[in-house]
Amino acid sequence: MAGSNGHDGARPVLGVGMVGYAFMGAAHSQGWRTVGHVFDLPLTPSLAAICGRDASGVRAAADRLGWAAAETDWRALIARDDVDLVDICTPGDSHAEIAVAALEAGKHVLCEKPLANSVEEAEVMAEAAERAAANGQLAMVGFNYRRVPAIALARRMVADGRIGTLRHVRAHYLQDWLVDPAFPLTWRLQRPHAGSGALGDLGAHAVDLAQYLAGEPVTGVSALTETFVRERPLLDGASSGLSAAGGGDAGTGPVTVDDAALFTGRFASGALASFEATRFAAGRKNALTIELNGSHGTLAFDLERLNELSFHDHTEPAERAGFRRILATEPEHPYLEAWWPPGHGLGYEHTFTHQARDLVTAIAEGAQPHPSFADGLQVQRVLAAVEESAAKNSVYTPIPA
Amino acid sequence: MAGSNGHDGARPVLGVGMVGYAFMGAAHSQGWRTVGHVFDLPLTPSLAAICGRDASGVRAAADRLGWAAAETDWRALIARDDVDLVDICTPGDSHAEIAVAALEAGKHVLCEKPLANSVEEAEVMAEAAERAAANGQLAMVGFNYRRVPAIALARRMVADGRIGTLRHVRAHYLQDWLVDPAFPLTWRLQRPHAGSGALGDLGAHAVDLAQYLAGEPVTGVSALTETFVRERPLLDGASSGLSAAGGGDAGTGPVTVDDAALFTGRFASGALASFEATRFAAGRKNALTIELNGSHGTLAFDLERLNELSFHDHTEPAERAGFRRILATEPEHPYLEAWWPPGHGLGYEHTFTHQARDLVTAIAEGAQPHPSFADGLQVQRVLAAVEESAAKNSVYTPIPA
Amino acid sequence: MAGSNGHDGARPVLGVGMVGYAFMGAAHSQGWRTVGHVFDLPLTPSLAAICGRDASGVRAAADRLGWAAAETDWRALIARDDVDLVDICTPGDSHAEIAVAALEAGKHVLCEKPLANSVEEAEVMAEAAERAAANGQLAMVGFNYRRVPAIALARRMVADGRIGTLRHVRAHYLQDWLVDPAFPLTWRLQRPHAGSGALGDLGAHAVDLAQYLAGEPVTGVSALTETFVRERPLLDGASSGLSAAGGGDAGTGPVTVDDAALFTGRFASGALASFEATRFAAGRKNALTIELNGSHGTLAFDLERLNELSFHDHTEPAERAGFRRILATEPEHPYLEAWWPPGHGLGYEHTFTHQARDLVTAIAEGAQPHPSFADGLQVQRVLAAVEESAAKNSVYTPIPA
Amino acid sequence: MAGSNGHDGARPVLGVGMVGYAFMGAAHSQGWRTVGHVFDLPLTPSLAAICGRDASGVRAAADRLGWAAAETDWRALIARDDVDLVDICTPGDSHAEIAVAALEAGKHVLCEKPLANSVEEAEVMAEAAERAAANGQLAMVGFNYRRVPAIALARRMVADGRIGTLRHVRAHYLQDWLVDPAFPLTWRLQRPHAGSGALGDLGAHAVDLAQYLAGEPVTGVSALTETFVRERPLLDGASSGLSAAGGGDAGTGPVTVDDAALFTGRFASGALASFEATRFAAGRKNALTIELNGSHGTLAFDLERLNELSFHDHTEPAERAGFRRILATEPEHPYLEAWWPPGHGLGYEHTFTHQARDLVTAIAEGAQPHPSFADGLQVQRVLAAVEESAAKNSVYTPIPA
Repeated sequence: MAGSNGHDGARPVLGVGMVGYAFMGAAHSQGWRTVGHVFDLPLTPSLAAICGRDASGVRAAADRLGWAAAETDWRALIARDDVDLVDICTPGDSHAEIAVAALEAGKHVLCEKPLANSVEEAEVMAEAAERAAANGQLAMVGFNYRRVPAIALARRMVADGRIGTLRHVRAHYLQDWLVDPAFPLTWRLQRPHAGSGALGDLGAHAVDLAQYLAGEPVTGVSALTETFVRERPLLDGASSGLSAAGGGDAGTGPVTVDDAALFTGRFASGALASFEATRFAAGRKNALTIELNGSHGTLAFDLERLNELSFHDHTEPAERAGFRRILATEPEHPYLEAWWPPGHGLGYEHTFTHQARDLVTAIAEGAQPHPSFADGLQVQRVLAAVEESAAKNSVYTPIPA
Repeated sequence: MAGSNGHDGARPVLGVGMVGYAFMGAAHSQGWRTVGHVFDLPLTPSLAAICGRDASGVRAAADRLGWAAAETDWRALIARDDVDLVDICTPGDSHAEIAVAALEAGKHVLCEKPLANSVEEAEVMAEAAERAAANGQLAMVGFNYRRVPAIALARRMVADGRIGTLRHVRAHYLQDWLVDPAFPLTWRLQRPHAGSGALGDLGAHAVDLAQYLAGEPVTGVSALTETFVRERPLLDGASSGLSAAGGGDAGTGPVTVDDAALFTGRFASGALASFEATRFAAGRKNALTIELNGSHGTLAFDLERLNELSFHDHTEPAERAGFRRILATEPEHPYLEAWWPPGHGLGYEHTFTHQARDLVTAIAEGAQPHPSFADGLQVQRVLAAVEESAAKNSVYTPIPA
Repeated sequence: MAGSNGHDGARPVLGVGMVGYAFMGAAHSQGWRTVGHVFDLPLTPSLAAICGRDASGVRAAADRLGWAAAETDWRALIARDDVDLVDICTPGDSHAEIAVAALEAGKHVLCEKPLANSVEEAEVMAEAAERAAANGQLAMVGFNYRRVPAIALARRMVADGRIGTLRHVRAHYLQDWLVDPAFPLTWRLQRPHAGSGALGDLGAHAVDLAQYLAGEPVTGVSALTETFVRERPLLDGASSGLSAAGGGDAGTGPVTVDDAALFTGRFASGALASFEATRFAAGRKNALTIELNGSHGTLAFDLERLNELSFHDHTEPAERAGFRRILATEPEHPYLEAWWPPGHGLGYEHTFTHQARDLVTAIAEGAQPHPSFADGLQVQRVLAAVEESAAKNSVYTPIPA
Repeated sequence: MAGSNGHDGARPVLGVGMVGYAFMGAAHSQGWRTVGHVFDLPLTPSLAAICGRDASGVRAAADRLGWAAAETDWRALIARDDVDLVDICTPGDSHAEIAVAALEAGKHVLCEKPLANSVEEAEVMAEAAERAAANGQLAMVGFNYRRVPAIALARRMVADGRIGTLRHVRAHYLQDWLVDPAFPLTWRLQRPHAGSGALGDLGAHAVDLAQYLAGEPVTGVSALTETFVRERPLLDGASSGLSAAGGGDAGTGPVTVDDAALFTGRFASGALASFEATRFAAGRKNALTIELNGSHGTLAFDLERLNELSFHDHTEPAERAGFRRILATEPEHPYLEAWWPPGHGLGYEHTFTHQARDLVTAIAEGAQPHPSFADGLQVQRVLAAVEESAAKNSVYTPIPA
């Protein structure tokens, strides 16, 4: 499939078709536009077509974001010959249908997180991905924070044994964009579209990172969830998920997702986990923080300072031990050999460039990139157990393997 | 009572008798020795007598720590005429007996935290304190971190409405002195002496601070506890709770307390709380961190940087808003008018000097200082609910008012 | 000139021709490729042609970096009809000749910093820019750090009076890539090519930022310079300025530039300045730090945390005053309305995208963007005074207005 | 001399007599009161007598600060049999006369910094100290910051070679208490009493620390000084140096010392130094910061976080290198074995307790403690060279060995 559109002796082309063009679509576009100019890739991604329901909107987005063509029906997008890979950037309620159709049409798939709005959908998707894999097609979930260099470095250090036996993971994802009760009822606050609230939007990242860095699954959770502001102004017209002009006279509607989710849990090894996801932490703009304590050391990360990794080496003499701030901008760090000199930091969007690099490389090599749809399903099961525990008086709820 | 030993026209004296002379005894002694030289007090504390079971040990401690007399029986200490206030610095299993006896003997009492090893003991103590109050005697629990200036400032700011409606409290107390499995089985690791492990030692501080700063009680919890290392070397001889020369050939014994406790909960107002207490967080030496998110702002504190308070004012224009680091060393800050110029930081031990100041002042004024034994009992109830929830599969466990 | 290549009813095109394709060329390319997809521009930049002396090298760079054509003679590049703007990314010794020729050929010019290797060259360039301005052509110097959002915010706050009367500026630019004496003798260590060492490379940025943020010129300096390692291995072959494979058996050669430069000075208003530029500060990777103290407040910045601006408002009550960390990622901050949600940080390369935006906008509006060649000349005069003072026993050396 | 007042079989007593009872006197008193209760000392300090010109003031100070007797004439204090050590806490203009007299009277001397208000006075004092040394008497200067545990640790690490060949030292001492032009004309702003302004008060600490940590002297400087606010309100009555109720109607008077001093210099080894001392850095309360860059690593310290030492080990692999925050509160750290468990921080005043410990121990052992009067004289020579350079157009001014 890949390379079917290759041209004139140069590297074969990988045609990308993207569904959705809001926040995530813009971020993915920047990744696709940039990756080939920075990394030495076996396939050259081409921004073949973009899809959205509004014809003029999608046409304008195609021009602005650099896509060659525009479609208004995702089925048409999937059917295009110049599309080898379908990149799904829509709200969670449409992930399953699009992804399964794309896989069945023989395309590779990149699907934004969370994989789906329910375990059932995610199971269908994972099964579809498994079937497609036999055909050489790859499917990947867009947990882009795995591609922050400091996080990739942390994973390497955990795998190298630098923190020893894991004891604790604490992962928080704190934002504050719902503190104002006048913020309107966007799709992200409606269960039919978003599946859940802070849990699926933020908690999903925290759970994925925790499992990725720990190298093992969460096996059970005990949870509390809360919706602090239960009615919000209705939107007049279209809005993105994260920003909105406000409600005007349109009245109010019920918030049907959680504003915050807190849960504790256990990993397969017996290590303990604590999670917190909220959109009500005033002043915390994008504070995805994660800390892993082990018998040999501790690693800590904060997305608001994404070029840094904090590491305490517990095997050092006490006289000189302490948390060190590794500026993850050296050529020795993941992804950095392609970028700038030491200390010249990267930003949020680079995670999408790195994700594109890893996916393109995996496609060329025919190797499954992480996180797979199965990984995405496992996250979905954790989220479902959180909701179940919260509904059952916080009782400890095991997660099926 | 107070001042019964007053002399020669000067301020009346408040005779202090202390039980215990290990870590806490040394810290309290530094507070008692210093307070009268720094603060202008209505009563002059005198270090009348110290008590411990080992005659030579207590005599040496009296000399080193500055106490006028030594006793080997706490009943004798309580009976002394020159003792107006009994300061209890022993392990938790003896708190109730000593405190009740002291109150019944007509003395004021300062009791180290946690108040007791069980709710039942704490109830008896709180009742004794209430009876004694009618007699003008005061009883106070030694949650000394309330007297860190930055914490007292945070409380003032919460009371002034600077963070608005409370949404979240997250309080962690992370230490690392049990990471090494060869650390021996001190009294702090034995349930009969310590009552619980990280929960009562560290979690108690976190719970007290959370309730103090929030200004409201925790009403229910869901909890996990864990003992990671279940056998440890026996000590050859005497040891303090926190340090020990190690085990030699004395064999091993079972650790009968928790190494870590994680719990989530709700406050009376509906705000959410998450707590974590552990002695297995490599590199975290004394990391009592607490953050309160409200509708108007956020406050955050870390005991490892105890002269600082972090504050985000959510009412400021977004252009200039951000977490500010208040160096709580200005004369406008609690307790600071008596100390050094701005920026000349205080240390851990100053909390005991401040505690002594507040208690002495309260005694002179006949006013109940916080935290009362009733406050200590409330903390004990939270701890008991944590243990109950942990034993019942983490089910949400209400806390009696 | 601009738009002469405009096509088919869409926005007119601004053809860009770039000279040089090493580190700076790659960074500028990323800016030119990205700017039109993120910002709404009055002109659409096209990456028309790139120029370098090595035919195969420049061809490969054109492909990799996204340029339509390649030239091996900068005079040919300037002569191209599809080039409206010449972007000069070569070492300093060729800036003057190329820039003057481009201006005389009727092109707009963007020239990397430092403007030139001597005051004399910079004067010629500033004069050429002034003549060309009469013809509607614009010239700008690539002091890209002015376009870090936090820096642009700081400038706005200074202009708004938020720090009051300026008293102190201290600006350091600390790197560590020469700590190893085996690092080879790249062009950046040779006076004929680089003009000076840490002074022109790093100190130039510090001086430009200081003058930009202060809003006034430095009027005199007293300086020390030093070359710690005076002989370094010769390079075998080609190398970039910042990285090199090492010397092999090629022998050693003399380092003819400074390793470090320290200088103090005065601003026109009487405020004091201290500067330090070095490549020998182990562990400091890209530490361009600047602090401005005024009568009403202080601003501080560190390029290693480029999404943050530190601000102390000295007009606040002492109880709540403190340095706040403004995460400069809000839509209210300069450049941010076009990027990601709050807390989703930008990186080093974004400064080049912002520079491109400001220059393209200025060209469309016919307004001089900052920093002009005159601004660049003023920086050059400060650097020359530093060298003069260092040569004259550090005597205070005035800078001509 | 020491121990001449020893009593009853216990450790011999060292009688201390202190001159001055303002800020420094209070701080020294806290050190003398505490040291014997925390450290195991060979001599027991007794707070024999305190001296001040105002009879009622000194009597009240003696009571408050814990001194047994009060004197109003320092000659009488020196003459007391129960005084073995004279501790001089007065402004700099009286240091020389008191110190020389005390040494000639056979007493040990501790003298606050700066040693004197001129090189001439400092020379006389150093000569007197040298003569007295032959008689077994010790003299020490109160550069108390050498006794911050993190600083003592840094010195040990430098001496152990952990930063290798020194390249740079940058030391700043920034405060902000003169930002307000209405702050009155205290003695610290008058040359006859204070000798100099920020230079002698703050710069002296920076120079001493720089030379102490580097282990070598500064050999020359180039300097700028400035007085930003040249007239200030006169005080109505008595005031301390750092705080004052303000001027009332008493008119204004000239500030005759520097508000800020900036200087660069060289160490004997060729390393470069930059210094800055100011009382006009809004928001910087007590920011004595020092950084040393060497070929093997970097050390950095900030007095506003005095329990921390920052260390970059440049010999580590780049993948894991970074600045680590050593929490200097472990028993392995200087002075800490006597204090609290790890992470339980110390404060500003502990430097005086440590200074007392080191001096008492040195007296018992008959060994010269650092910093000697000769060390204090060397600092004075640096300060004098700064003033000379500033007066001579910043010309580089050598410092006599």
